[in-house]
Amino acid sequence: MSDPISALTEAGLAPVTDPDVLAAHAVDHAGLVPPGRALALVRARSTEEVATTVRVAAEYGVPVVPQGARTGLAGAATAVDGALLLDLSPMDRIVSIDPVDRLAVCQPGVLNAAVSAAAAEFGLRYSPDPGSWQISTIGGNIATAAGGMCCVKYGTTPEYVLGLEVVLASGEVMRCGRRTAKGVAGYDLVRLFCGSEGTLGIITEATLKLAPIPAERLTLAAVFDTTADAGRAVTDIMASGAQPSLLELIDNTHLRALEALRPMGLPTEAAALLLVCADANPVEELAAVERLCAAAGASEVHRATDAEEADALLESRRSAYHAMEKLGTVLVDDVAVPRSRLAEALDGVQAAAERHGVLIGVIAHAGDGNLHPNIIVHPEDPASLAAGRAAFDEILEMALAMGGTITGEHGVGLLKRDWLERELDPVNLAAQRRIKDAFDPLGILNPGKVLTR
Amino acid sequence: MSDPISALTEAGLAPVTDPDVLAAHAVDHAGLVPPGRALALVRARSTEEVATTVRVAAEYGVPVVPQGARTGLAGAATAVDGALLLDLSPMDRIVSIDPVDRLAVCQPGVLNAAVSAAAAEFGLRYSPDPGSWQISTIGGNIATAAGGMCCVKYGTTPEYVLGLEVVLASGEVMRCGRRTAKGVAGYDLVRLFCGSEGTLGIITEATLKLAPIPAERLTLAAVFDTTADAGRAVTDIMASGAQPSLLELIDNTHLRALEALRPMGLPTEAAALLLVCADANPVEELAAVERLCAAAGASEVHRATDAEEADALLESRRSAYHAMEKLGTVLVDDVAVPRSRLAEALDGVQAAAERHGVLIGVIAHAGDGNLHPNIIVHPEDPASLAAGRAAFDEILEMALAMGGTITGEHGVGLLKRDWLERELDPVNLAAQRRIKDAFDPLGILNPGKVLTR
Repeated sequence: MSDPISALTEAGLAPVTDPDVLAAHAVDHAGLVPPGRALALVRARSTEEVATTVRVAAEYGVPVVPQGARTGLAGAATAVDGALLLDLSPMDRIVSIDPVDRLAVCQPGVLNAAVSAAAAEFGLRYSPDPGSWQISTIGGNIATAAGGMCCVKYGTTPEYVLGLEVVLASGEVMRCGRRTAKGVAGYDLVRLFCGSEGTLGIITEATLKLAPIPAERLTLAAVFDTTADAGRAVTDIMASGAQPSLLELIDNTHLRALEALRPMGLPTEAAALLLVCADANPVEELAAVERLCAAAGASEVHRATDAEEADALLESRRSAYHAMEKLGTVLVDDVAVPRSRLAEALDGVQAAAERHGVLIGVIAHAGDGNLHPNIIVHPEDPASLAAGRAAFDEILEMALAMGGTITGEHGVGLLKRDWLERELDPVNLAAQRRIKDAFDPLGILNPGKVLTR
Repeated sequence: MSDPISALTEAGLAPVTDPDVLAAHAVDHAGLVPPGRALALVRARSTEEVATTVRVAAEYGVPVVPQGARTGLAGAATAVDGALLLDLSPMDRIVSIDPVDRLAVCQPGVLNAAVSAAAAEFGLRYSPDPGSWQISTIGGNIATAAGGMCCVKYGTTPEYVLGLEVVLASGEVMRCGRRTAKGVAGYDLVRLFCGSEGTLGIITEATLKLAPIPAERLTLAAVFDTTADAGRAVTDIMASGAQPSLLELIDNTHLRALEALRPMGLPTEAAALLLVCADANPVEELAAVERLCAAAGASEVHRATDAEEADALLESRRSAYHAMEKLGTVLVDDVAVPRSRLAEALDGVQAAAERHGVLIGVIAHAGDGNLHPNIIVHPEDPASLAAGRAAFDEILEMALAMGGTITGEHGVGLLKRDWLERELDPVNLAAQRRIKDAFDPLGILNPGKVLTR
């Protein structure tokens, strides 16, 4: 066999080389990262097929780019030149749900929402809720250490991953982690793979922690005339010891875009709207939040009167990106700052918008200090694109200056690998490279993602 | 300079070589692991002194064994031949408490209890509560990924570590992690260091996540005549969606030892006592737990009438080890099994006790399926010691056969490194070794701990 395509075919796989198919699979949802030209697409149906693909890649020295639903926002799933695109979405089986041990075992191509749907029968859910939860896969969620709206109380994806099966760069299959609630046997390889974006190995099965579905949830909306007041409300809520199960901020730009998309009476003159949910002692909890919002200067605090109204409010938050898309192409940024500096960060983003003459709206997982500045550009106009990119970079710079991070939850991928070198000190960066080399000495696993080499 | 002692002295450190001092610092609280003979003890007062010590060790090729309060139970802090014992307990400064961002920054020698004491002023606490919390250090807690009683609701130490400063084997100082609530920039080095037992680097500062102190906590005790009933109660409670903040089991052997230590009316004829705390909606939560315990066959369910009684019950749980010490030398085992197999594991431990003719009592973090079989031996009698060791090993074997782990929270250290090779598959073990080599190519950092080489 003289080439990887023949070798894959010989091994019983069906690599697809049709240029249209490859082009359709070349990118994820990240902007600003032009894809390379892939060699072939392999649709994996089993761990064995993943291992075979990696072995062929190692033999011929070609890159492997693992892909799921390609809903990522940092280009981790973007094609690189000469790569085998390894589509794991056919591996979409929920292997088991165990209600007593509160575990789900599933393949990487299972959708996030499907795990919760299967667990709901037992009063359980899979807590992590990235914005893409209805369309993104568990494998991708783990590979990017995905966040979401419930993190402020329930934490992020890695806290819900107990065990993994991983195909290593050698083609060997490794199991790590456990099925028990606790365990400290050896280095925590599970956590190392969480957020490694397919650069250290390819996840082929995951053992996930399930949690009880909260019995009741109430929702509140608070309207603020200044970002400073909204920021103060967030810091006061979090400093009070409250444990909101959701604490989101929608800025004026998004409020207007949402109202334009579908009128529902949002306060389009407000500087910011806070959405707050509580699910432990929700009546008492929201009463406390209400007082704090009022004290911080909210011009209006409104408790959703029923589940329908609450759902509509949360749905508006989920539609934020879609609403902005009506205004142009959206460059999605993602930074986190210490939550005490939220208001300052919001003002900094607006200053960047004005300085570069671009429209930027911010939605924020406010309780976590995690901001998504959505930058509107018009790609047919090079000046607009350049201005958007300049604002994008300035926001990253600002986050670092505030003691924050260049990515709160979307990951590094291709989009921010240069910025990773700004965030991490050289000793840390060298350690990251040693880990990459230890797991992928030939550099075939998603090369150029996360780390520049 | 021709030797490491002179080099350390030259560098301004004061290595102690007094054999009595070295002997006093040679072990932690683990049984069954004879210490090696150390070269010297260095008491570090700063990150720079740690770096200097590691650099000298690297230059002369001598091992460094980091130590804190030496309360560990797996021998991770035990001296090895020719080592520099690096005592980090003088680095005991809380650098800052930030109530809005809910962060504590502290040096490794700070006691676990001291962090919560400092945070309490702001209504916050440092949640992780290993049994040793009043005497163990944050550095040791992180290095062993310590568990505790609140894990069943609040998780273990690693979930509360956001950032670290670490001295690497090269003597370089690395920062990793973040101060923000969320962040996914690069591989998760923080988590890799959690539980690495001083074999990958030496923690010199930690940024910890604080959490609100729960407003109210109620406690319940349920008495069971059979372990099967107690096990069923635990699985029923956890399957019900309840979120107890503590769910501990005390077996008959411990109940009798505790009552002998200090009579307080414990049910010495019972097979097991369950202690359950709740702190969200405690009245409702405990009512549900009470019903489930009764339905599972509890012969008595008693709600603590006041905080004093609740404290006395929890204090009895905390005295379990001390009570057993009155009966002989205690070999502390630590296994975790899927919680659905708790009763089976309890019966398996008693079968091992009978088979080997040794007394074994079990206390368990029942909600997590984490058992501590405490094995009584009389070291002056070699047959007793051999029988205890045989039972110890048989319990590890049983845990693995049940899909569990050889260590739920105490770690591997010297005590269980051979067993780690039984738990992990060869591909995983090889990956663990590659990580060790990537961080410590000379093998000077706590050699022989966790991994056999």
